[in-house]
Amino acid sequence: MKPTIITLNWVPEFAHGYVKDLRIRWACEEAGISYDLKLITSKDQNTKEYRQIQPYGQVPAYEEGDIKMYESGAIVLHIGEKSEKLIPRNPSARARAITWVFSATNTLEPFVKVFTHVTKEGPAKQMLETRLNEVAAWLEGREYLEDQFSVGDIMMVTVLRDLGDEEVLTKNKILMDYLSRCESRPAFKKALNDQIETFKKNTPA
Amino acid sequence: MKPTIITLNWVPEFAHGYVKDLRIRWACEEAGISYDLKLITSKDQNTKEYRQIQPYGQVPAYEEGDIKMYESGAIVLHIGEKSEKLIPRNPSARARAITWVFSATNTLEPFVKVFTHVTKEGPAKQMLETRLNEVAAWLEGREYLEDQFSVGDIMMVTVLRDLGDEEVLTKNKILMDYLSRCESRPAFKKALNDQIETFKKNTPA
Repeated sequence: MKPTIITLNWVPEFAHGYVKDLRIRWACEEAGISYDLKLITSKDQNTKEYRQIQPYGQVPAYEEGDIKMYESGAIVLHIGEKSEKLIPRNPSARARAITWVFSATNTLEPFVKVFTHVTKEGPAKQMLETRLNEVAAWLEGREYLEDQFSVGDIMMVTVLRDLGDEEVLTKNKILMDYLSRCESRPAFKKALNDQIETFKKNTPA
Repeated sequence: MKPTIITLNWVPEFAHGYVKDLRIRWACEEAGISYDLKLITSKDQNTKEYRQIQPYGQVPAYEEGDIKMYESGAIVLHIGEKSEKLIPRNPSARARAITWVFSATNTLEPFVKVFTHVTKEGPAKQMLETRLNEVAAWLEGREYLEDQFSVGDIMMVTVLRDLGDEEVLTKNKILMDYLSRCESRPAFKKALNDQIETFKKNTPA
């Protein structure tokens, strides 16, 4: 059953490359899984039908036959189960890959969001820096978060990218090297280009 | 292989019942899995050895033979795989349970944290209220988030509980009823009592 990724038909240009269907596209590309797109409008997000799939009205969502999901992290895990390239079969390596998915979205991402959306001063900045340094300390001498690239890296990279050219990120050489290593993967480039192309094609004149 | 939950030996009384090992204890109780505890001190959190398991130095962490995890969400999912009481085997029900784990920790929890730790005014309050209303709209007429109690409810309940007696929560009858329904489960009560007992026993005089 071919999966369908549900996302917006277009977003303003500053958000091109940052809407979270990117995570799912990337996972599909790494796993060699082709997918369909269902493009919705911002009006559709508030319909009762869509809220039955996504109670918050956000994108992305995901359908695969009877399976209806939302939350990019959950969907990336679901796709990961289909390929050893994303979640290793070895139980301890599997556990680490899943751990990093939560580490990125639950421990790091909230600090990134507070920094980018609420305040860049004081404790918000210090706490983000501390977390980034801890991730960098872990990554020192490592190519990826664990021995092989995994769903954990997809989530970590897409959280870090949200910091754009903020100095708190760009001054951290270990994280910048890790980002460019992951972003140079053909699957990432394909996913990124495809997302941007979708949004460009549907942007009203 | 009996799992080991790693948590602090004690915390100040206001945190009793709120440290996130509660989620893992609760999942174990629901699944009928007994576990060992490894209690660490706040000093241990900063050792190189502990950072090899938990790069941020936080609790809880988890060991099960070769398997070494952190992030309560990841660990609850891992335990959930061991019992149909926590993650149904049916693929579409399974996908929903996992979706709700992320929904609670990645969409709702960041708003709860900003409200409880950063600011209770303006957009922070409005956005939390919107999210809570969306969860309540979903729960209306439902006993649990989906047809059966799952890992999703464990995560959702432990996120909502962090709001304590804040009016934004207590005025929402649907959420309060849902909370009391879940908190009256014997597995929750046992987990809660066990956590509090551990901390009380080890609190310095």
